[in-house]
Amino acid sequence: MISVVGLGKAGLPLAAVIADSGLKVIGVDVDEEKCRMINNGVNPIPEEKGLDDLIRKHGGKNLIATPNYEDARDCTAFIIIVPLFVDENYNPDFRILESALRSVGKILKRGDLVVVETTLPPMTTETLVRRWLEEESGLKLGEFYLAYSPERIMTGYSISRLREFPKVIGGVDEKSGKIAYELYRKFIPNLHLVSNARTAEFIKVIEGCYRDVNVALANELFKIAEDMGVDFYEARKYANHEYCHIHEPSTGVGGHCIPVYPWFLIKLAERKGRFSDAKLLRTAREINDEMVKYWADKIVLACMKVNKPLSEVKICIRGITFREGVKEIYHSRNLALAKLLKDKGLKIYVYDDLFTLEEVERLGFKWIEPEEADVVFDSFKLKITHNDGSLKY
Amino acid sequence: MISVVGLGKAGLPLAAVIADSGLKVIGVDVDEEKCRMINNGVNPIPEEKGLDDLIRKHGGKNLIATPNYEDARDCTAFIIIVPLFVDENYNPDFRILESALRSVGKILKRGDLVVVETTLPPMTTETLVRRWLEEESGLKLGEFYLAYSPERIMTGYSISRLREFPKVIGGVDEKSGKIAYELYRKFIPNLHLVSNARTAEFIKVIEGCYRDVNVALANELFKIAEDMGVDFYEARKYANHEYCHIHEPSTGVGGHCIPVYPWFLIKLAERKGRFSDAKLLRTAREINDEMVKYWADKIVLACMKVNKPLSEVKICIRGITFREGVKEIYHSRNLALAKLLKDKGLKIYVYDDLFTLEEVERLGFKWIEPEEADVVFDSFKLKITHNDGSLKY
Repeated sequence: MISVVGLGKAGLPLAAVIADSGLKVIGVDVDEEKCRMINNGVNPIPEEKGLDDLIRKHGGKNLIATPNYEDARDCTAFIIIVPLFVDENYNPDFRILESALRSVGKILKRGDLVVVETTLPPMTTETLVRRWLEEESGLKLGEFYLAYSPERIMTGYSISRLREFPKVIGGVDEKSGKIAYELYRKFIPNLHLVSNARTAEFIKVIEGCYRDVNVALANELFKIAEDMGVDFYEARKYANHEYCHIHEPSTGVGGHCIPVYPWFLIKLAERKGRFSDAKLLRTAREINDEMVKYWADKIVLACMKVNKPLSEVKICIRGITFREGVKEIYHSRNLALAKLLKDKGLKIYVYDDLFTLEEVERLGFKWIEPEEADVVFDSFKLKITHNDGSLKY
Repeated sequence: MISVVGLGKAGLPLAAVIADSGLKVIGVDVDEEKCRMINNGVNPIPEEKGLDDLIRKHGGKNLIATPNYEDARDCTAFIIIVPLFVDENYNPDFRILESALRSVGKILKRGDLVVVETTLPPMTTETLVRRWLEEESGLKLGEFYLAYSPERIMTGYSISRLREFPKVIGGVDEKSGKIAYELYRKFIPNLHLVSNARTAEFIKVIEGCYRDVNVALANELFKIAEDMGVDFYEARKYANHEYCHIHEPSTGVGGHCIPVYPWFLIKLAERKGRFSDAKLLRTAREINDEMVKYWADKIVLACMKVNKPLSEVKICIRGITFREGVKEIYHSRNLALAKLLKDKGLKIYVYDDLFTLEEVERLGFKWIEPEEADVVFDSFKLKITHNDGSLKY
């Protein structure tokens, strides 16, 4: 019997896939209402393709959800897949993770296996995670097993990712790696055992770094192209081929993952006083985070063409989520752009197909139909339009 | 009849492919011996796959090589594909290009077409190239046509690149673009007309920027991995998939192309006093160029394990070309590494399968069989080995 701790966007699809492989799963989550839904066969994350079927089939049967760690006492494997946030200085805030691991530590038995899936700064599993478990369980590593396997989900496609995408797993020691690999093979078809937990942690973080640096490159090249009157999208289309993968420009990089992971490595270098060790990652972060200033300037320039005092021009930011089509605003640079313009004293409104007027107001913004604004900025197409229909970009 | 000016590694394959399409080609090159070989059906670039056949078939027939621009007087189209170097401050040195274009200008007739293939800082074709041609020919743009189509060759694979790889072309004005496109279609199967010459120039430069930034990312992540005891190659293998393309680490980036192109955009930003506009490109250049220092330090550390005074330890740099398997040392970072260590007063030797003892000595280095050195650094595998066979990396 396997326990999955954390039934969020990453944890629930994993729990459902494990249950579907024939194994019995006890899912632990603080959200009691969510647990009830799952046990009644109702999927609390309907936007996740294929999850409805799995929850209907296994919820309350092979997959039991509970807010109590005690109910997972008979499990022999614990998979931890809870969120990790960073604080305002970009240092990881381990509180949720520590609490989950200490709770697991309390019910951990000799011979049990713990696998962490939350994306972590490399070396966290072998240090902090191990310590929390040892302290609470009174056991030593070797009496229990500890491994790391990063989740590689993508909101909306998590089930197919689990079933098709390559997944890696690595142990804090050799035996932990082997035991974890043998278990995961039962429900992950495309699984690879790597040298150790640290390597598995590093793999996940550098994927995010690749994305962040390449979005920064796209943003830098976009600005240069604009400056010289070249259509960046046309250039990108023909520059890209088998060996060239220039990304799309944007208002920056949002969400829980990509803007956070580079900081894991940047902070590591900084703590050693070797600031230049991660200077590309740091420059990429700066470029992406500063894109809101670039777009704010462009929008203000567009407003100057409206025959009204600047403070009277109604500006609509269309699209406030961090990614198109996903109702998530964590670290959203589109919202940051709206806030930046609002703080300048401009008349800012927002619009998003996925949000109601009430939801927009709860975020502290005014809602508007794009047609009623003087200037509309489409956050995803990066187009500024005047209300007379003329296009700035 | 078409003239191809410059019969080097990029120009000769192009001239041969044009001749093979049935068009008559006059190739112009300063190297008289090379011209004689071509006219006798002998390929002067034997490492270029498929070129032997084409030169044997067309040399002296459909493809006539000559050192005299006068012999190309009856041509109606001129393709310029000569080298462009940068000076010690990374500013482009236009002398070869200017000389070729002024020579073409002197024989240019009303209605003729000029296409530049040399990689250029964006906007060069519409400004400098146009001016040189107008000054020498006495014609105005519109009386002749001017376009740009960047070469995308890769040493050894240029023929297949020309026949399969997408190629773009753009005119300085609309009519130039159309005329150039219609001509190039006769010998380039995968051809795309883009908005203008500037866009075509930009496309080529950003491909190089993508490579340079991604090699810098690989180098930065490699150093971080080494520092935390993670095998970077293992991590890279599993991090890469459909959406992640982390490159290979190296001693830096050499050759005529990739280390040069980012400077075109960096210099453009600097001339405008907007230094941060290209800060990612600049940081990437720094990281790649500073890799020789990183490797020099590692090699010195390895030498300290040899039971001899440091100044007596025989160090062999194995592999001095800028790319593995290509006998080219332009901007070679491996040679730069050897020089850096030599300048420190260490006993540096070099070895390369592609170079004889005499060739090595002509470069100012001492030659050695790797087995006779105390410490060997393999420039491409990035491995440091002691003469007792023990591996440092």
